[in-house]
Amino acid sequence: MSQLDAGALVEEITSKVIARLQILQDPAQIVLGVSNRHVHLSHDDLKTLFGLDELALYRKVRQPGEFAAEQFVTVHGPKKSFQKVRVMGPCRAKSQVELSRTDCYTLGVKAPVLQSGHLDEAAPIDIEGPLGRIHLEHGALVAARHVHMSPSGARELGLADQDTVSVEFGGLRGGRLDNFIIRVKDDFIPEIHLDTDEANGIGALQGDFGRLIKE
Amino acid sequence: MSQLDAGALVEEITSKVIARLQILQDPAQIVLGVSNRHVHLSHDDLKTLFGLDELALYRKVRQPGEFAAEQFVTVHGPKKSFQKVRVMGPCRAKSQVELSRTDCYTLGVKAPVLQSGHLDEAAPIDIEGPLGRIHLEHGALVAARHVHMSPSGARELGLADQDTVSVEFGGLRGGRLDNFIIRVKDDFIPEIHLDTDEANGIGALQGDFGRLIKE
Repeated sequence: MSQLDAGALVEEITSKVIARLQILQDPAQIVLGVSNRHVHLSHDDLKTLFGLDELALYRKVRQPGEFAAEQFVTVHGPKKSFQKVRVMGPCRAKSQVELSRTDCYTLGVKAPVLQSGHLDEAAPIDIEGPLGRIHLEHGALVAARHVHMSPSGARELGLADQDTVSVEFGGLRGGRLDNFIIRVKDDFIPEIHLDTDEANGIGALQGDFGRLIKE
Repeated sequence: MSQLDAGALVEEITSKVIARLQILQDPAQIVLGVSNRHVHLSHDDLKTLFGLDELALYRKVRQPGEFAAEQFVTVHGPKKSFQKVRVMGPCRAKSQVELSRTDCYTLGVKAPVLQSGHLDEAAPIDIEGPLGRIHLEHGALVAARHVHMSPSGARELGLADQDTVSVEFGGLRGGRLDNFIIRVKDDFIPEIHLDTDEANGIGALQGDFGRLIKE
């Protein structure tokens, strides 16, 4: 590496570190997690599809206790199917399939935008595993945008569970997305959650930062 | 229909018409066109792929002279292919493939966000038709957000060709997207263009209205 290159490199690293420090000092700047299509299973449905009592850990994710499982399923819609859809652990009270709107068009599923676990209006969908296939009459949803935070993090921002905020993202495809639901729980780590349509549409990647704005 | 239902219906129609009239009276409210993945072909490439001198009209689109052609192609990326990708007419100086970021991940194509026709940095991609297959070394792009308007429409909004604006969309998944490029031409009809990721991400449909905001 030439002397000139080293100087430019030091300059670039310095300004990147400073920019990141400025972000870290602003509690309204929160890291982004992008959710690809995935499935949560109840213990009963896990037993039916895989003959297992528990999911196997593949990789931890940012929220404590949550993980990507080793298990994959096939998700069947009226028009098409997706193979190798990741199951996320641990097991939930009810099984659900989280899709992007693009996924919904591909599958032919008319899933509404809902908060995770609020399944009364979720769309019908089928899930297939190595040992069987189940039909969920209310199982498919497009996850509503949300931001995880701890009670102290929420207090610092003057926010409470189920409040809504906007989030601004920079970059060539940047902008402001509205109606993020604040979700507060003792062990939550601050994290903005978008699905792939939203992240691709706003040009943001896993690990980028967004800035919360009160609505 | 009962008397009560008719009254509610009249009320609903009235308020929808009033809301639409208010939108029509605001020149900053512009209708949205959502672009699915599509291909433009040069005359030479049309000849190679289809043995044709001209594309056949399938359906006109909003911009005068532009149309969806009867012709479909297969688009090949390193990872996967899309069959039945619509060709849009008329022929252009150079062939290009417009993809969403989601499409890029599926195909395994690393296409940058570019203005249509600005192909110097576009990604390599293959197109197959009934009579042959071509390789474009610079052919695949994710179309930059843009807004079409006539010179008089631009003047009314105090805008000029290649200016950038933001656009706000309402609804559950609403927000503000930045960096739309203003494109002015004599026969352009006012129209906001988004790709499917952007439209799905912001929860907007073809025919919805967005409101222009100067940056």
